[in-house]
Amino acid sequence: MSTTDRQPLDGVSVGILVAQEGTEEVEFTEPKETVSDAGADVVVLSSDTGDAQTVNNDLDEADAYSVDKRFSEVSADEYDALIVPGGTVGADNLRADEDGVDLIKQHRAENKPIGSICHGPWTLVEAGVVDNRELTSYASLRTDVENAGGEWTDQEVVVDDGVVTSRNPDDLDAFTDAIVEEFAAASE
Amino acid sequence: MSTTDRQPLDGVSVGILVAQEGTEEVEFTEPKETVSDAGADVVVLSSDTGDAQTVNNDLDEADAYSVDKRFSEVSADEYDALIVPGGTVGADNLRADEDGVDLIKQHRAENKPIGSICHGPWTLVEAGVVDNRELTSYASLRTDVENAGGEWTDQEVVVDDGVVTSRNPDDLDAFTDAIVEEFAAASE
Repeated sequence: MSTTDRQPLDGVSVGILVAQEGTEEVEFTEPKETVSDAGADVVVLSSDTGDAQTVNNDLDEADAYSVDKRFSEVSADEYDALIVPGGTVGADNLRADEDGVDLIKQHRAENKPIGSICHGPWTLVEAGVVDNRELTSYASLRTDVENAGGEWTDQEVVVDDGVVTSRNPDDLDAFTDAIVEEFAAASE
Repeated sequence: MSTTDRQPLDGVSVGILVAQEGTEEVEFTEPKETVSDAGADVVVLSSDTGDAQTVNNDLDEADAYSVDKRFSEVSADEYDALIVPGGTVGADNLRADEDGVDLIKQHRAENKPIGSICHGPWTLVEAGVVDNRELTSYASLRTDVENAGGEWTDQEVVVDDGVVTSRNPDDLDAFTDAIVEEFAAASE
């Protein structure tokens, strides 16, 4: 490969979290494809291996996706960046997984970048990484984010010290652009 | 009717909130049936009239139920007590309805009793009625409840100053017993 073929996320390891059920399909597939196309090595992480059942519009069954590794068998050292999709049920399930939340906590303790969209930021609240941080999310999470000490703003994408957040699937273009930029910057 | 036929909730008006979609069916139907059997006049309230589509286990389509009145056309004065079921998507939708949240806020401003189960207590967080209150909920809401100033405890039912809360559908017997008792006491 010539140097002109170099991609912004070459050599960058990205973990994408998915719930056993209820993750919003497009918030999983689009960021995954974007960072992969940008050269990242992407690993799909969940509570258990096997298939993760995603949804469309929160309640309609969508496709199932293969999980690479369990939260309990990985450590934050293995990933340069993390992605947490939404889906109301999926995000609620993810925040209830202690190993998944601990992964986010350890990851942010090293100040490494994370992108989360829609209901995904509940996991950031759960991991205690929202205090004094500016972020956005699906609008219904605003009170939870503010009660956790975060400064919630209504923008398509917010970037604060490596934490990239967006409001809903309509923001996916801005979200994927921003995570590629932040993940690349952090791995330079 | 002889005096021996008197029911504990005779003459008590109860509003039960339901989301347009995603309310957990059994957390709607069982409390509704119980307070109705105990003599209450029950009114089904939602963002809009027509049918509300409920679910089983958060994601599986269950039956649809007819809505009596919109949140926007009722006032807290009309109800002696309120019930807020869970369902992850349903409770998230309810908390996003300003009129629904305002109804809860006004209801509690008059210190009238309310029962909420599972993910339903998100609406209590949203209405700002959790601070300095002891309550329970589905376990994943613990952090949101505590960040809102509530004291979260892991019990099948918690009653604090007219606020009755339970954790999940397995607690329904304890929940329905407690709401009948609290609603009756408050209307004496």
